[in-house]
Amino acid sequence: MQNKFTLPIVVGAVFSPFVLVAAEIPDWQKAEITEVWEPVPETVTFDKNNIPSDAVILFDGTSLSNWQSVNEGAAKWPINDGAMTVLPGSGDIKTKQTFCDVQLHIEWKMPTQVTNDKGEELTGQGRNNSGVFFQQRYEIQVLDSYHNKTYSNGQAGSVYKQHIPLVNASKAPGEWQSYDIVFNAPVFNEAGRLKTPASITAFHNGVLVQNHVEIQGVTAWIGAPVYTAHGCDSLRLQDHGNPVSFRNIWLREL
Amino acid sequence: MQNKFTLPIVVGAVFSPFVLVAAEIPDWQKAEITEVWEPVPETVTFDKNNIPSDAVILFDGTSLSNWQSVNEGAAKWPINDGAMTVLPGSGDIKTKQTFCDVQLHIEWKMPTQVTNDKGEELTGQGRNNSGVFFQQRYEIQVLDSYHNKTYSNGQAGSVYKQHIPLVNASKAPGEWQSYDIVFNAPVFNEAGRLKTPASITAFHNGVLVQNHVEIQGVTAWIGAPVYTAHGCDSLRLQDHGNPVSFRNIWLREL
Amino acid sequence: MQNKFTLPIVVGAVFSPFVLVAAEIPDWQKAEITEVWEPVPETVTFDKNNIPSDAVILFDGTSLSNWQSVNEGAAKWPINDGAMTVLPGSGDIKTKQTFCDVQLHIEWKMPTQVTNDKGEELTGQGRNNSGVFFQQRYEIQVLDSYHNKTYSNGQAGSVYKQHIPLVNASKAPGEWQSYDIVFNAPVFNEAGRLKTPASITAFHNGVLVQNHVEIQGVTAWIGAPVYTAHGCDSLRLQDHGNPVSFRNIWLREL
Amino acid sequence: MQNKFTLPIVVGAVFSPFVLVAAEIPDWQKAEITEVWEPVPETVTFDKNNIPSDAVILFDGTSLSNWQSVNEGAAKWPINDGAMTVLPGSGDIKTKQTFCDVQLHIEWKMPTQVTNDKGEELTGQGRNNSGVFFQQRYEIQVLDSYHNKTYSNGQAGSVYKQHIPLVNASKAPGEWQSYDIVFNAPVFNEAGRLKTPASITAFHNGVLVQNHVEIQGVTAWIGAPVYTAHGCDSLRLQDHGNPVSFRNIWLREL
Repeated sequence: MQNKFTLPIVVGAVFSPFVLVAAEIPDWQKAEITEVWEPVPETVTFDKNNIPSDAVILFDGTSLSNWQSVNEGAAKWPINDGAMTVLPGSGDIKTKQTFCDVQLHIEWKMPTQVTNDKGEELTGQGRNNSGVFFQQRYEIQVLDSYHNKTYSNGQAGSVYKQHIPLVNASKAPGEWQSYDIVFNAPVFNEAGRLKTPASITAFHNGVLVQNHVEIQGVTAWIGAPVYTAHGCDSLRLQDHGNPVSFRNIWLREL
Repeated sequence: MQNKFTLPIVVGAVFSPFVLVAAEIPDWQKAEITEVWEPVPETVTFDKNNIPSDAVILFDGTSLSNWQSVNEGAAKWPINDGAMTVLPGSGDIKTKQTFCDVQLHIEWKMPTQVTNDKGEELTGQGRNNSGVFFQQRYEIQVLDSYHNKTYSNGQAGSVYKQHIPLVNASKAPGEWQSYDIVFNAPVFNEAGRLKTPASITAFHNGVLVQNHVEIQGVTAWIGAPVYTAHGCDSLRLQDHGNPVSFRNIWLREL
Repeated sequence: MQNKFTLPIVVGAVFSPFVLVAAEIPDWQKAEITEVWEPVPETVTFDKNNIPSDAVILFDGTSLSNWQSVNEGAAKWPINDGAMTVLPGSGDIKTKQTFCDVQLHIEWKMPTQVTNDKGEELTGQGRNNSGVFFQQRYEIQVLDSYHNKTYSNGQAGSVYKQHIPLVNASKAPGEWQSYDIVFNAPVFNEAGRLKTPASITAFHNGVLVQNHVEIQGVTAWIGAPVYTAHGCDSLRLQDHGNPVSFRNIWLREL
Repeated sequence: MQNKFTLPIVVGAVFSPFVLVAAEIPDWQKAEITEVWEPVPETVTFDKNNIPSDAVILFDGTSLSNWQSVNEGAAKWPINDGAMTVLPGSGDIKTKQTFCDVQLHIEWKMPTQVTNDKGEELTGQGRNNSGVFFQQRYEIQVLDSYHNKTYSNGQAGSVYKQHIPLVNASKAPGEWQSYDIVFNAPVFNEAGRLKTPASITAFHNGVLVQNHVEIQGVTAWIGAPVYTAHGCDSLRLQDHGNPVSFRNIWLREL
């Protein structure tokens, strides 16, 4: 600030101000111009399990009270050792609460049994299959893809039949695996036309498998995926007939 | 498959095939059409520290052999207990290897001392400041933002002076914190003009703080950020005069 | 379809269906699986001036009935020869209707006089300046950038102080010029936090000058642009003190 | 600048500079901080047909010298009245030059005959079909979609079998129609893996029909579109067996 006492310069500034900028403004004042003080981001803290304070805890290992069956009635999947396991034939389950954009954490484990009742090896899509459906429509595949070949756009970490995962980061049956997923819901205009497709970033066991890819429409087993307008909706877990387990499920609304 | 024996339908198909599709193709064959088998994603495994097998380990706690000073010569930051700590005044350090698109994991810890030599409290940008610079240019701020107010676009988790973090997920001084970051490098055409800006997705202590935001140009303390064409470049850690510590640094090239 | 009469194959299909796909499904049936018939896009026709039937005509050269002053009262800019011209000092004008995502067509013309009252040449930002503001906030610069140097992020075709145009496609003063612009409005969540920034694609005289760039916040002359939550809003034209003319203004809501 | 003479304030500034910013810096100096002067966008001028000076003129109505058959040898499509017309059975044609990111202008006209040799009405995909293929792979459909229903993701203005056009802006057979298209080529990493998918913004007769949509892979008639790494490549026009005409074809490399 000392230069403010240099009167000849200050006087000069009155007559030809444009050439004196460098002399007039100290760096810290120039820098201040691009500081943004509002809004102030909200503070997040962590509990003893390192779950962020703004998370909605969907399953803490003790009850399915936040879930219901997509068929009528209560969710019937059994809970053991802090994990819920698909009860084959009981149907998918979904959250009672609905969501739009979220950051989701979920852990899952494949059965160590990889043969059927006749002792035949389970392979491909038949090898212990489930799925995480955002807004009941957009599926991230859950499958035992450990040394188990299937079509690439249907293996673990894929946006089912839409996006091949960047790598296969699967762990062995019996080991807990994790998905950390950022899901940006699709946006529709008032007439129901798609304005912005959904997009997804996903980590499988901490490894990036989907890098902000666009979702092409509702997950389709057959044919082309298509969008139809909808609002916020439940998170859904699939009963594909195999006893896949889940635990430690929480999400943050974005 | 039983319908294949329905001969009248099959005969009819010869003359008016278009109306018989549903009868002709069983669902599993329709579904097969949208299976994609190539490419097959490469397999990633995990070491005992859960680091993926395709990671470049930049710092495992034992040596700075992958780093050099941005000034001349070797990186001089001291290593203790598996962590490196900024040696104030020694200058920034950068990786010897250069990178483009990456997934980065890095852990950092703030000093518990939050006063200066005169016993005055360190505040704002002065409270133990450092930074992670992708390609030596694009900074994610590293700062003690635990109960320490500064401009929002300059706090921990910000793309410095470009993007406010979604939340403040800071932990207290003395606790280890983590960044997990997906950095997509900018793309320039042959004439050096920007075709695609860099973008970034970042998690602070596992919490999403940047959701695929576009970077506006090289990080600027003063004035507007601007892009100038460049190739792959080093990861750089900032010496901002404070003894901030780092450990467990690895990245995956995307 | 002839192979349908090959009964041994058909019978075999019952027992080992997976090997027979190629034989069973003719190409046109496979292709049908990825046809999407709904929704059917709405039909747009064209009037004698080639304006699409779903356009909102904001100015057809006859009246300012769709506009008002941003100060109190009616828009006062005079109309001559099918064009409206800024009345310096009367203030900006804005549409009575509000808009979100739009495709905008607008034509503008610079005065041929490029000197001031004292005969001094108008230069830089002083050379006949105006602006098109989407939602009253996000400006595409309107300026005489024909052989008139100014800062690159402030010339015609720029997103003012945010994005330099890809090229300078300016025509000479006195010639009509056009902007064709796709503006995607920002999306905020219920808490008022930005979810998706605005983005813009712009053609100046038919030449691409902005290629789906993200807008960083409300246009700021000083300092960093910042977002604050808002809904749909008016299109605004700027009175920057120069008699810039506009004509043939229409947009389509997306 | 007069306040510079207010000595008490200036003296005060030495001891508590932070409170005096507003008084010290005039607005025009604050504004200067966010001006960006480099790079200076290149200047584009226009010829008498309003074609920009940096365009590559692919067809000006006089010769097919910039084109070749995708089969061996020269392009054989006849030229009449400044337009080239598909010679059914002669095969697709492609540019000799290869391109990556481009802005394309192309005009096309459907035959007024909409019946076949037997007098039967041509319908659906059979009604005068062609296509514009970027990099020989990614097709924008060219079809007579004027009062002619087909699957939505296969009508004029569609990214064939990937994206339904926002509206049907078709003109009648015999009328010239235009496409103005921004095509951003896909980017692959050195290992051949997709880093950034192609994206496209398209106007049909001046009306937005594709708003920066992502391309899912190489256009596929059957099955799911897939990406395979490639470099810059030719623009290709399709011979689908119908005498569709084209004229006034130019593009700008981005």
